[in-house]
Amino acid sequence: MTLDEAAALDAADPLAPCRTRFQLPPGLIYLDGNSLGALPSATAGHLADVVTRQWGGDLIGSWNKHGWIDAPVRIAAKIAPLIGARENEVILADSTSICLFKALSAAIAANPSRSTILVQADDFPTDHYVAQGLVHLLPRLRLRTVAPNCIAESVDEDTAVILLSQVDYRSSARHDMRPINQAAQRKGALTLWDLSHSAGAIAVDCGGDECDLAVGCGYKYLNGGPGAPAFVFAAERLHAQLHSPLPGWMGHDEPFSFLADFSPARGMSQFLTGTPSILALAALESGIDTFSGVSMGAIEVKSRRLSQLFVELVEEQCSGQDLRLVSPREPERRGSHVSFAHDEGFAIMQALIARQVVGDYRAPDVIRFGFAPLYNSFEDIVTAATILAEILQRREWDQPRFRERARVT
Amino acid sequence: MTLDEAAALDAADPLAPCRTRFQLPPGLIYLDGNSLGALPSATAGHLADVVTRQWGGDLIGSWNKHGWIDAPVRIAAKIAPLIGARENEVILADSTSICLFKALSAAIAANPSRSTILVQADDFPTDHYVAQGLVHLLPRLRLRTVAPNCIAESVDEDTAVILLSQVDYRSSARHDMRPINQAAQRKGALTLWDLSHSAGAIAVDCGGDECDLAVGCGYKYLNGGPGAPAFVFAAERLHAQLHSPLPGWMGHDEPFSFLADFSPARGMSQFLTGTPSILALAALESGIDTFSGVSMGAIEVKSRRLSQLFVELVEEQCSGQDLRLVSPREPERRGSHVSFAHDEGFAIMQALIARQVVGDYRAPDVIRFGFAPLYNSFEDIVTAATILAEILQRREWDQPRFRERARVT
Repeated sequence: MTLDEAAALDAADPLAPCRTRFQLPPGLIYLDGNSLGALPSATAGHLADVVTRQWGGDLIGSWNKHGWIDAPVRIAAKIAPLIGARENEVILADSTSICLFKALSAAIAANPSRSTILVQADDFPTDHYVAQGLVHLLPRLRLRTVAPNCIAESVDEDTAVILLSQVDYRSSARHDMRPINQAAQRKGALTLWDLSHSAGAIAVDCGGDECDLAVGCGYKYLNGGPGAPAFVFAAERLHAQLHSPLPGWMGHDEPFSFLADFSPARGMSQFLTGTPSILALAALESGIDTFSGVSMGAIEVKSRRLSQLFVELVEEQCSGQDLRLVSPREPERRGSHVSFAHDEGFAIMQALIARQVVGDYRAPDVIRFGFAPLYNSFEDIVTAATILAEILQRREWDQPRFRERARVT
Repeated sequence: MTLDEAAALDAADPLAPCRTRFQLPPGLIYLDGNSLGALPSATAGHLADVVTRQWGGDLIGSWNKHGWIDAPVRIAAKIAPLIGARENEVILADSTSICLFKALSAAIAANPSRSTILVQADDFPTDHYVAQGLVHLLPRLRLRTVAPNCIAESVDEDTAVILLSQVDYRSSARHDMRPINQAAQRKGALTLWDLSHSAGAIAVDCGGDECDLAVGCGYKYLNGGPGAPAFVFAAERLHAQLHSPLPGWMGHDEPFSFLADFSPARGMSQFLTGTPSILALAALESGIDTFSGVSMGAIEVKSRRLSQLFVELVEEQCSGQDLRLVSPREPERRGSHVSFAHDEGFAIMQALIARQVVGDYRAPDVIRFGFAPLYNSFEDIVTAATILAEILQRREWDQPRFRERARVT
């Protein structure tokens, strides 16, 4: 495919105009929205307004006057349609890890006679850390790790909860949530999905797929900025059974009565703990607003086209270069990123970044490329694949400066 | 005292120039920095830089290039001198409540043979909620509530940890931390101080007073903005014994190795969990930087002078108005806010706000006035006391519009 052909695809792409909702550095091909979403054009202005006019001008009165107190509920309601949830089933709270701890503890407590947390081998490490932390706190629990392809048949009468990423952070392999949710239901277990690598990138349907609980990240495809607050989803049918293990005044039924005893708010608000960062929430709101008027169906269609085109171009142009597709070949079995393995993956990614193609590297040998349908174009894909092929053919990666390991990403 | 006399005090006040470090609305007398600190002049520009140049321009590369990864440690080191701690004894993490949960759990786990969390009656409710949440999770624990004046003698061989606010959120009564820490030490218990109403307002000395653990709020006297991240302090001598109950990738010894098992970072970094909000941390840094070059001794001296002047003027000008001082009369026994009780406290505070004097109300009958030595002036005090006296004398508060209860603050 030539750049002209790619430009023609972009011209016909109904989502192409959404690229103006972001401020991307000229010349940069940013394929790491799966790690940190790009800066929305509206964020700086929105944040300046919240800082200067609201906080600076109205100070403490802003909690009422500017609706700060409702922000975790109000902004979460905008996430609901992105993940197939009802508005009252989502709340914005702390970091993804803390949200996961809350949801996992709540699931465990709702299934008190059971002791197993079922997880998948090689799932996102921090999800396992959170589960390990809970097991350390409550030694009656145990963590059972099984292979990704035998989750459903591994659920048994002792399974309290299955904790799974819908889309694998490394391989991009995607679980079909519905059969796993149904297998869990049949055995009386709950499911807790980590949607960090799917929310905002593919058409997640928590309601239709009968999910019990979920959490997700605000700073990847939702474009909320570095370390944005995360969301917690819980199906309404479970609300009465769930209790957050981390009570705090924001999750109290009457937060401003300053009562001595905790009495949880109804619904998702009980998952709030302390005072949330209003600045972080404001930035996240601008991030979520980049999805305004766009259907997740259209997002997923474009995600598949972008990732499939990238896979095809890379395999065509880089054949014989020891690059191995780590992600599923069928686009419907993937999320919105694609990973390849190469023994020199680290240096290759540094060489790509030096040529303005930004993806990332995950040890030991994986290079990842994330496709954000709101701002990535078909031209991005063609150019990135061409540059990758050049780097491999010319061994551009084989330089000391590309082998120096920085600490991050 | 006349306004001219107050102006003379301001002219002689070495901290008076610090007021320009803040953007305060003209004509407003803001006496609620104990609830939400005022907007520092530097915040909007700093945040715009982090958003537009760093996030927008360098995207994921900012974690290295702009040192985002070190922000929780680097900015926490600036809090250390404000609370008498060493730089490696403080970390910035989640909300105050989540930080409190982490510190409380760590203290409990470090004292595994003991089961009592000792708290004080009428302490900040959310602190009790956090403790209640932990007891709910670990039913072997119990919460023992005692009167504020008999903490030290209530410590016994079953006390794992004493959880206390240094300065009471309502009355402003202040604990002398040293004798309580020493009583705890004698009995083998740990102490966990909530410094939310003292850090940045008075000369806290965690090291000299032999504190074990502490948490504190970033958005009150530290001026970090609504819902700013909180800090955790732990004395270095305890670091090897403490383990956070909420592990996550940011608290891992090798966060970018993506290892399957959690291995805590050394020192305070283990108290990190998920990815922190870099925007919230940036705003907090500007808040903490308002203390640059100012000693906490000078802050405390001015705090006492402001609060004492306010108490004296109010008692002089409002005598016979059923206003009762709730705070200790001796400034050294208080924090930096002063509270009065009045049956019509709610309406009186609304009338004050309508006249541009902003304090706050705490049920059932308390009006609070917080004095932030960096930006409150002696003129503020004289004017506020005069307006309060007028409101009471003329019964200005006795209007339906001042009795309408909004939800917040």
